[in-house]
Amino acid sequence: MPSAPRAIVLLSGGMDSAVCLAIARSQGFECHALSFHYGQRHATELDAAPEVAHALGAAEHRLIDIDLAAFGGSALTDDIDVPTDRNSDEMRASVPVTYVPARNTVFLSYALAHAEVIQARDIYIGVNALDYSGYPDCRPSFIAAFQAMARLGTRLTDLTVHAPLLHLTKAEIITRGRELQVDFGMTRTCYKPDSGGRACGRCDACVLRLKAFAEHGIADPAPYAPH
Amino acid sequence: MPSAPRAIVLLSGGMDSAVCLAIARSQGFECHALSFHYGQRHATELDAAPEVAHALGAAEHRLIDIDLAAFGGSALTDDIDVPTDRNSDEMRASVPVTYVPARNTVFLSYALAHAEVIQARDIYIGVNALDYSGYPDCRPSFIAAFQAMARLGTRLTDLTVHAPLLHLTKAEIITRGRELQVDFGMTRTCYKPDSGGRACGRCDACVLRLKAFAEHGIADPAPYAPH
Repeated sequence: MPSAPRAIVLLSGGMDSAVCLAIARSQGFECHALSFHYGQRHATELDAAPEVAHALGAAEHRLIDIDLAAFGGSALTDDIDVPTDRNSDEMRASVPVTYVPARNTVFLSYALAHAEVIQARDIYIGVNALDYSGYPDCRPSFIAAFQAMARLGTRLTDLTVHAPLLHLTKAEIITRGRELQVDFGMTRTCYKPDSGGRACGRCDACVLRLKAFAEHGIADPAPYAPH
Repeated sequence: MPSAPRAIVLLSGGMDSAVCLAIARSQGFECHALSFHYGQRHATELDAAPEVAHALGAAEHRLIDIDLAAFGGSALTDDIDVPTDRNSDEMRASVPVTYVPARNTVFLSYALAHAEVIQARDIYIGVNALDYSGYPDCRPSFIAAFQAMARLGTRLTDLTVHAPLLHLTKAEIITRGRELQVDFGMTRTCYKPDSGGRACGRCDACVLRLKAFAEHGIADPAPYAPH
């Protein structure tokens, strides 16, 4: 039996990247998951990542430290207040303060380096163009441009960057995850969890996630702080 | 008097990036230099970087630690022997073992993040297509593709990636540096320096550098180990 081809999967420990890993596995890849620590305040997501990687059958999981010296200017790494209680129209109006400069470019660059080292020709990233249209590095044109650049900048001339959630709504992502037996109770999404790792229920990420579960008429199995 | 526009300059402490910084300064930019520690064995280059940055008038110099977890498979970070005593035709024949997977992509991604944070619209990188044609991430098409990707993935829609040495020979780089009063005695290039930081004179980088100075009929002012 030939061995399975390898893929790199960016895994935050959140809902989207978990479904993305499940999709990569379902397409027959031996999955090498990468998570990044970049000073994000919602590090409970990262705590969830190894468990999610294991449960969804990743062959390997690595946590990579990103040097913050180049970063700043974002609510996820600085002390700017994360907005709460906004509706999705308000979120859509502008580049959100939770935007981290060039984050997906940096993550994908590490994924590309690792892909070249282990001779993987496929990278999976769980970005989503609909719910997060305010992030320039979640746009389809960005993913296509990264792939074109990556093919020129490495020996991986046939590399494919897969973004299988790109055109799905949050509700469709949940559907896809349920089909693939993803345990959403393991995943974490909140930007402002409490000290026990419970989600706030009010930040942009929570609002979108809860709305999506509500559209399904089911309860989100992740823990939320009472308020 | 309006303040000078800002540029990010990738600075290794070697000859090429020093000339690149001098060019960026001569074009009127306030230069923010970035160096990277990625486990390279030739860390004397990095020791030289702050001095080079200061001497050439950079406004700021940052050293960024790259997490090696994603890397490997290269002579510059592993224990593979660095080849010595090759001529430039032998070097040109293939992707060299000194190639570090996706290195320039990772460096440029950090530069992009920092550019977005400090609102710089210009990034300078001292890559050179002629002498290092074996590195895919030194090709003109790669630089152009990175710029296209960067404009889509950030708010810097008019970002320019400058590679002013791209089509210069090593000898022409020396000429340009001398015009701009670069002190090459400060710069370091060797892949295999001795414990005192003296260049080996025999690795690919030394062979190319010495050949270029020889073409000028002048001595390289950097220190070399006797052999």
